[in-house]
Amino acid sequence: MSIDMADTDPSPEIVTAALVVIGEEILSGRTGDENIAYIAGYLTRVGIALREVRVVADLEAAIVSAVNELRPRFTYVFTTGGIGPTHDDITTDAIASAFQVPVVVDEGAVAAMRRHFSGRELTPARLRMARIPEGAQLIDNAISRAPGFMLENVIVMAGVPRIMQVMLDAVMPRLAKGRLMLARSVRIDAPEGDAAPGLADLQLAYPEVRIGSYPFFENKRLGTYVVLRSTDETKLADAERALWALIKKEGFAATAAEDE
Amino acid sequence: MSIDMADTDPSPEIVTAALVVIGEEILSGRTGDENIAYIAGYLTRVGIALREVRVVADLEAAIVSAVNELRPRFTYVFTTGGIGPTHDDITTDAIASAFQVPVVVDEGAVAAMRRHFSGRELTPARLRMARIPEGAQLIDNAISRAPGFMLENVIVMAGVPRIMQVMLDAVMPRLAKGRLMLARSVRIDAPEGDAAPGLADLQLAYPEVRIGSYPFFENKRLGTYVVLRSTDETKLADAERALWALIKKEGFAATAAEDE
Repeated sequence: MSIDMADTDPSPEIVTAALVVIGEEILSGRTGDENIAYIAGYLTRVGIALREVRVVADLEAAIVSAVNELRPRFTYVFTTGGIGPTHDDITTDAIASAFQVPVVVDEGAVAAMRRHFSGRELTPARLRMARIPEGAQLIDNAISRAPGFMLENVIVMAGVPRIMQVMLDAVMPRLAKGRLMLARSVRIDAPEGDAAPGLADLQLAYPEVRIGSYPFFENKRLGTYVVLRSTDETKLADAERALWALIKKEGFAATAAEDE
Repeated sequence: MSIDMADTDPSPEIVTAALVVIGEEILSGRTGDENIAYIAGYLTRVGIALREVRVVADLEAAIVSAVNELRPRFTYVFTTGGIGPTHDDITTDAIASAFQVPVVVDEGAVAAMRRHFSGRELTPARLRMARIPEGAQLIDNAISRAPGFMLENVIVMAGVPRIMQVMLDAVMPRLAKGRLMLARSVRIDAPEGDAAPGLADLQLAYPEVRIGSYPFFENKRLGTYVVLRSTDETKLADAERALWALIKKEGFAATAAEDE
């Protein structure tokens, strides 16, 4: 499958993504999601800009509408969850329904599972995991063999973090990547309110660098992480110099924080 | 302000919510979100069903479209993030824009902040936090005084977890609550694939109880948490008895897990 980037994004330098987390257990508060932070950090590091995340219930209508709203808007849509062997795993059918294609049994997936499971273990329930929407390409699962899949620009992965992670590794070589979003972080030991006017001026002076301000509490004191982001190393370095000049002028205590 | 529940939900017994997390730092992977799990658990416990979560960037268009898509669909829409003193805090203006109302300085918010901050500290940047959309009601912030607000069915809170939490406490008495979603969890020491056929039959037999199946790895072995959910205690108890009968018939090792 090839994706015509011109259809999905006006600039080939920017590759975007959305993530749909399918998980009633997250909406009920039973389980804390671990996948959002992992996928967000991973995509940022490879040059794919995650622009939106949605968490929806294990309901076909909710999955179909999230996927169909997002797939025309972003280069890729990743999903996690709902591709296991039980009755509440409905993601495969929902994706097929979103694309209006039938679900078929993939012989490659059956073969991979046959090598992993004994004959007795390869029950009809487990064989459900070899069903994929027609036209989808498999994504290897190095752990338990039941695969994920990619259909056009939608990448469907397991919800179990360890399995999702090997699927993300497996699919990554097939994906387009854009320019890396570079970042510098500076920790200022002053409350956001004190830093605000200078940061606002800085943002006006460097419109192509995104300047984010994130308050924190530590030892009962307020501080501020300032994060500068740009795909342009020169502009980023200029804005960082201006930030340090501001810090000096205001007399803030500050340290460079780990780049992200 | 009073919400006519008939306008927002056909059944007063079910109260629903969506959550919009405004946070570029979460999409970049810089910060792991802590608010989703907290709010999900809290709302479930009081009888508000969280149906969807969206994480969007600190961009007015992204915030406006998420809020305007969600507010007609759910009883309440909660937002977190973007109401601090810095240039990148644009949630107040975005919400005003979503409702097409002006932003006004709230004298009650100014007074609360005046009691908290010294005159020297009450800078124009901090006074930005007293700006709210016209017609909104303040939500107290017992920690740092800069308030959240509620406009119709949209509840706007800070992103700093400790401050969000006191705002959630403060607004809760004003909100409608529906029937509690009751749950029972059972831990089965067998892989999901083994439990799948029995669970599918159970779901067919108890259509009014949602039966969720969540795999886990522990000591290199696969197991399954089965979670039964219903607002009806009798139906829940019936389904739970049937689940234990299934476990006995299949010969699984199993234990009741903590109710949620």
